[in-house]
Amino acid sequence: MTATTLTMSPSCPLPLPAMDRVQLGHGSGGKMSAELLRTHFLPLLDNPVLRQLGDAAVVLVPGGEIAMSTDTFVVSPLEFPGGNIGSLAVHGTLNDLAMMGARPRFLSTGFILEEGLPFDVLDRAIAAMAAAARESKVMLVAGDTKVVERGRADGMYVNTTGVGIIDAQFCPRPDAVRTGDVLLVSGPIARHGMAIMSAREGLEFEAQIESDSASLVPLVELLRERVGSAVHALRDPTRGGVASALNELAASSNVGVMLEEASINVPAPVAAACEMLGLDPLYVANEGVLVAFVDPASAADALAALRSHPLGASATIAGHAVADHRGMVVLVTRIGSRRVVDMLPGDQLPRIC
Amino acid sequence: MTATTLTMSPSCPLPLPAMDRVQLGHGSGGKMSAELLRTHFLPLLDNPVLRQLGDAAVVLVPGGEIAMSTDTFVVSPLEFPGGNIGSLAVHGTLNDLAMMGARPRFLSTGFILEEGLPFDVLDRAIAAMAAAARESKVMLVAGDTKVVERGRADGMYVNTTGVGIIDAQFCPRPDAVRTGDVLLVSGPIARHGMAIMSAREGLEFEAQIESDSASLVPLVELLRERVGSAVHALRDPTRGGVASALNELAASSNVGVMLEEASINVPAPVAAACEMLGLDPLYVANEGVLVAFVDPASAADALAALRSHPLGASATIAGHAVADHRGMVVLVTRIGSRRVVDMLPGDQLPRIC
Repeated sequence: MTATTLTMSPSCPLPLPAMDRVQLGHGSGGKMSAELLRTHFLPLLDNPVLRQLGDAAVVLVPGGEIAMSTDTFVVSPLEFPGGNIGSLAVHGTLNDLAMMGARPRFLSTGFILEEGLPFDVLDRAIAAMAAAARESKVMLVAGDTKVVERGRADGMYVNTTGVGIIDAQFCPRPDAVRTGDVLLVSGPIARHGMAIMSAREGLEFEAQIESDSASLVPLVELLRERVGSAVHALRDPTRGGVASALNELAASSNVGVMLEEASINVPAPVAAACEMLGLDPLYVANEGVLVAFVDPASAADALAALRSHPLGASATIAGHAVADHRGMVVLVTRIGSRRVVDMLPGDQLPRIC
Repeated sequence: MTATTLTMSPSCPLPLPAMDRVQLGHGSGGKMSAELLRTHFLPLLDNPVLRQLGDAAVVLVPGGEIAMSTDTFVVSPLEFPGGNIGSLAVHGTLNDLAMMGARPRFLSTGFILEEGLPFDVLDRAIAAMAAAARESKVMLVAGDTKVVERGRADGMYVNTTGVGIIDAQFCPRPDAVRTGDVLLVSGPIARHGMAIMSAREGLEFEAQIESDSASLVPLVELLRERVGSAVHALRDPTRGGVASALNELAASSNVGVMLEEASINVPAPVAAACEMLGLDPLYVANEGVLVAFVDPASAADALAALRSHPLGASATIAGHAVADHRGMVVLVTRIGSRRVVDMLPGDQLPRIC
């Protein structure tokens, strides 16, 4: 924005607001809002649909079922090893669509900006959002920005909503786990939550822990191609971790879940950090891991499919669905004992996503 | 939620959190999150799609174009004469879809709740959201809730994202205004902004001013049925008011706009309040008004269509598009003088929607 558009009158020179930070006026719907779009959002997010700036985006879909998912991101801090709120907001919603077997196609985003947010932080979030969308071949077609007074947000909050196309031949559903199904976990767990904790608290662990924030779409495509309808249920274990995701699937499908502690991959620095903070990695958030329940006849092929991609290189078979203790998850520990892995009542780690 | 789920150990009775307010744990993804959904959101918003609680909602659409729109609501106060943040969040997004000629079908919503928000305020917002969606025959199919610490939000913020079906025979677009087109304004202006101001400041005007927050879908349906493709452009003048909406259409379509002050309906209490506060009603937000540019041959029919519905009973012809001063809006005042109605640079009223 040029300085002149803010000068109210040539005879009364006002102190110009510092334009390296978000001002309340950027949320006004007037010229400053238009400038915010033109100078910060559109250069990075531009595409033929968004450029029209209509009240709504108009996009073409084939007839049939579509999937729709929404997620709001309030992660603190806004930037962390392995990502920022912009990349996280894209991955989170794409992954939710992918867990229903949908092919993500379109995204919308709504930003709440706190007055005083430095534009360089905003620009990095927008750039990461654009890169994540491009990488996953989804188009960001609609957006909205609001500004609230200093002290009424925490830098920024970001909502993303995604639309994907359902493939009638590939419909994993949370209530479709069958007893006997094999449980696969696509990679090392608890990295996102511990990366956030280390960034938030300024903790120095033996090695820097990076968030696993990533699009799970490529892994789901591999499962679709190689084993298709043998995949009965998928879930990305974000807030509440693997333990909560498995509890939800066990409850929805009315099966028991047996989980083998020895087959769960917790990277050594993550395990050390969890131990230091008194956290159980099974409850810590992931943003680039999926759990899958697969027909036993296709489990080996599904495992090979996951392992053929870098994101799934260390995938494991980590348990199975059983007819006992329906609706519950039981962990077989390394020493062979068994304990119930319940859902936590409340918070282990707030503001993780 | 029963008290027992929060008691950490029977031998160490903790003070139970007061459950009439939102706690941080309600955002954890654990049992408290599930209880928040089960006891506050699902009873009011329940439908067969939402009930599945999958990672994404799966819904059926016909093949062709769909419209997608997103809007985040940070209105302060959360409740005001004529509505609350819940009804506003539904109307705002439905109206954006309707302005592109789409028939709204599905909504998602993302809530950011501040720790300590009284549940009765939340429940009234959810109830108003449910009523507004039901009234407009749209299904709320996906949702998300996050909780942030006290002082990191302002009660609650709400995002809604909508999907509508495009009718190939009815495609009003912001760049499709033609010179000669007649401008219609569907009702009295500046009510929403002044209702918020009076609620916020505790101002007592001669009469209570109610927000005009309403779904514009019925008015658009009437225009579609009666004059169809003669409607070239539609816009709902929210943030920035009628002045900003007309400036945007003038710029997108590269036409001039002549606006007749005498034909703009500003209710007497609204005009008095604007005068008292030094505000120009042309820049004050509306949430239940549309402006339409219509082929002159169909203008009378379009006006009659609007007037046949209570929401458009006082619709007027308020100007037209011209080949002069392209990209600009010129007001013909009551005394016959002319002045340019520019976009404001920044804020007249923050946090209005």
